[in-house]
Amino acid sequence: MKDLLTTTDLTLEEIRGILSDAQSFSEGATWRPEKQTFVTNLFFEASTRTKCSFEVAERKLGLDVIPFEVSTSSVLKGETLYDTVRTLEAIGVNAVVIRHNQDRYFEELVGKINIPVLNAGDGCGHHPTQSLLDLLTIQQEFGQFVGLKVAIIGDIRHSRVARSNADALQRLGAEVVFSGPEGWFDETLLQNGRYEDVDTAIETSDVVMLLRIQHERHEQNGANLVDEYHQAYGLTVEREQRMKRDSIIMHPAPVNRNVEIADSLVECERSRIFKQMENGVYVRMAVLKRSLEGSFTNVNHHQKWSLAHK
Amino acid sequence: MKDLLTTTDLTLEEIRGILSDAQSFSEGATWRPEKQTFVTNLFFEASTRTKCSFEVAERKLGLDVIPFEVSTSSVLKGETLYDTVRTLEAIGVNAVVIRHNQDRYFEELVGKINIPVLNAGDGCGHHPTQSLLDLLTIQQEFGQFVGLKVAIIGDIRHSRVARSNADALQRLGAEVVFSGPEGWFDETLLQNGRYEDVDTAIETSDVVMLLRIQHERHEQNGANLVDEYHQAYGLTVEREQRMKRDSIIMHPAPVNRNVEIADSLVECERSRIFKQMENGVYVRMAVLKRSLEGSFTNVNHHQKWSLAHK
Amino acid sequence: MKDLLTTTDLTLEEIRGILSDAQSFSEGATWRPEKQTFVTNLFFEASTRTKCSFEVAERKLGLDVIPFEVSTSSVLKGETLYDTVRTLEAIGVNAVVIRHNQDRYFEELVGKINIPVLNAGDGCGHHPTQSLLDLLTIQQEFGQFVGLKVAIIGDIRHSRVARSNADALQRLGAEVVFSGPEGWFDETLLQNGRYEDVDTAIETSDVVMLLRIQHERHEQNGANLVDEYHQAYGLTVEREQRMKRDSIIMHPAPVNRNVEIADSLVECERSRIFKQMENGVYVRMAVLKRSLEGSFTNVNHHQKWSLAHK
Repeated sequence: MKDLLTTTDLTLEEIRGILSDAQSFSEGATWRPEKQTFVTNLFFEASTRTKCSFEVAERKLGLDVIPFEVSTSSVLKGETLYDTVRTLEAIGVNAVVIRHNQDRYFEELVGKINIPVLNAGDGCGHHPTQSLLDLLTIQQEFGQFVGLKVAIIGDIRHSRVARSNADALQRLGAEVVFSGPEGWFDETLLQNGRYEDVDTAIETSDVVMLLRIQHERHEQNGANLVDEYHQAYGLTVEREQRMKRDSIIMHPAPVNRNVEIADSLVECERSRIFKQMENGVYVRMAVLKRSLEGSFTNVNHHQKWSLAHK
Repeated sequence: MKDLLTTTDLTLEEIRGILSDAQSFSEGATWRPEKQTFVTNLFFEASTRTKCSFEVAERKLGLDVIPFEVSTSSVLKGETLYDTVRTLEAIGVNAVVIRHNQDRYFEELVGKINIPVLNAGDGCGHHPTQSLLDLLTIQQEFGQFVGLKVAIIGDIRHSRVARSNADALQRLGAEVVFSGPEGWFDETLLQNGRYEDVDTAIETSDVVMLLRIQHERHEQNGANLVDEYHQAYGLTVEREQRMKRDSIIMHPAPVNRNVEIADSLVECERSRIFKQMENGVYVRMAVLKRSLEGSFTNVNHHQKWSLAHK
Repeated sequence: MKDLLTTTDLTLEEIRGILSDAQSFSEGATWRPEKQTFVTNLFFEASTRTKCSFEVAERKLGLDVIPFEVSTSSVLKGETLYDTVRTLEAIGVNAVVIRHNQDRYFEELVGKINIPVLNAGDGCGHHPTQSLLDLLTIQQEFGQFVGLKVAIIGDIRHSRVARSNADALQRLGAEVVFSGPEGWFDETLLQNGRYEDVDTAIETSDVVMLLRIQHERHEQNGANLVDEYHQAYGLTVEREQRMKRDSIIMHPAPVNRNVEIADSLVECERSRIFKQMENGVYVRMAVLKRSLEGSFTNVNHHQKWSLAHK
């Protein structure tokens, strides 16, 4: 059984294996577990993209999804996360995907639950499938990571993916720089990359990775921040024109149009924003396959893993 | 790719084609797309009938339904309808069904999204599958529309279906009259039918089509309106006795019992109210088939369209 | 067509038949209806266990589940339960599972609806699948009911299952005693069992069946009750050590840890709490099979009922 908790826990070999499977899925490969397999998505925070993406990935693998709505569950009666997941295990659920607003919520589960936990985002911590889909998108574009310069720009301190992306990119051989408001930079980030002013970062990088401004986490700063952010740190139409030839734009979405990026650039030629969403499905298929293969290791089953190009 | 936005946009040939397919489905015909096909139902307004009806129709066609709950989606983070639907398209959803409280919400999508949009109701505007199921129910009963008199009675001004039903019925050759409180009649309706007092309308029509009183839209009028409505404009037990032989009663539901119609008449012999709901599934199967056939036109696929009577 | 409303309505033969089918399912038997079959779960009260358990059971039988969220349904527009269920019947749903906070809500439906109703809990009344899974768990453990002593301890007055479990256990030949706060005992319970002090009950019974303290129903008593309950009436570590050899612990869950039962005992060797949850799926498969076989009696169909041990 293999959990997916953080990208920093993954070895380079594991990352490359997941990206390879995801690439195969993007080319039409299919895989299905032998037995009827149940999965539940526990989303304690709002999300369109991640939840729907897992739902599509699960159905493409032929899994049966057991619906679970937090708002109508016994969590309202004070049930702990452990008891909720242990219950799902008892009734036959084979894997759980969890998004939770608490950092490292999964420590309550790991080693006590006998079904794999796939982390779909914990607090300000990790969001491994987002990191992996970012890596897949870059790999599809450039074929390799060595020699690439990647700029991560925006709300670095509150970002689930800034640190784990930077860590994985660096291990894979890329150079990482951070940009955005200097006050949001943090010395703990130095081990993964230096701070660079936004104009230099945008003009010299192969990948300009914008992060979402979390309105909900910046209430004290209010509307002024949002108004001024675009000119000071956003990807404006002018800055895009000074980007390197063949460089690409990424953003985890949902996009705040005209804040992190000019409205007209969201679907421009350099933008891989919707490509990232598409890749999210393939990455989630790959990590579900990895977890379910692990959880069935005691069973002699012949997996139907076939490459069937569309 | 074919959207379904309003019935007024549909040609008579298209209406007849949809009704013919729906009739085939009602007789046990089956159709399934060649490839695994994903659909999402985006309901921004409460609905039992329409949502569940689409859910059944989708499963009868073997589609995979990706659940989407507005209350736990990124719409809460201010995401636009365009970005939400574009996201669903990116992750592989093949068609979206949308109900929204804003009139003509679909103008934000049409021409920009590459998957079909099926309108399940927009504001006070249109509700094409409701209109089509009404037409199917009338066609099943009378075989044709020419020579029929149809009375549409009730909250004409706020009704999604009054105008579009009247337009389609008139184009198909039926005579339409409107009735109910005169203050709710509207000169713009004159192009589709004249106003008639409620007793004449009920006594002389082949189809008595009652509309729901939208409590939520008449708050200022309050309880008095509801109390008095039944006697003044409702289908009372007495009025039903004066209806033409072989004439039928229709209502889009949910019914306000003893307001639009006497409680004891809801399931009387003349009533087609639950027949309409049943027909809703067949009509939705037909429009989904029409949209999905359209969206796969570049693919060489042999549709499994077969008549298999139950 | 066979409803499942209360266990007291079931004959001993029916109970034994359901337990036998459930046992077969637990050993890997499979059964699927011939035709595509639709079921809807209407949960008007929060529940993880029961709802998810039905969802798994339904998918194991190959049923198509039509999602129904109370919070986005026409129930908000004041639609009655009858009209809601009648609508689901009209659109092709073949069975409904209902949990409702009103005692005997099903009286509004029985005899008027042509699809089976499976009661998943009504007010303080009945919860037949919970009773049946309790019986299955006891039967698996002891092989028979005659000669067993079962103690039901806790909030007997507000419990959905105390009365119906006691009734069924007694009919099957077991001896039942009730324990917990004496003020919660009720003379109407005397027909099924006598009151016994908690220490005697725990020390002399083969099955110690703990009931959940319904915080939500004891607001006036507040925190003190909860603090004192564990020492006075709960299954403490000390009391467990005085239990009979081979006796077992049961609880319908969700558990209030350190209230009804000490935290460390929830998954101890005697505990069948998670076994009960697993059995819940098999019992629900059995009652769904029973209801759907009944509803298809006019159709000549060869059921695929086969024992296929895992």
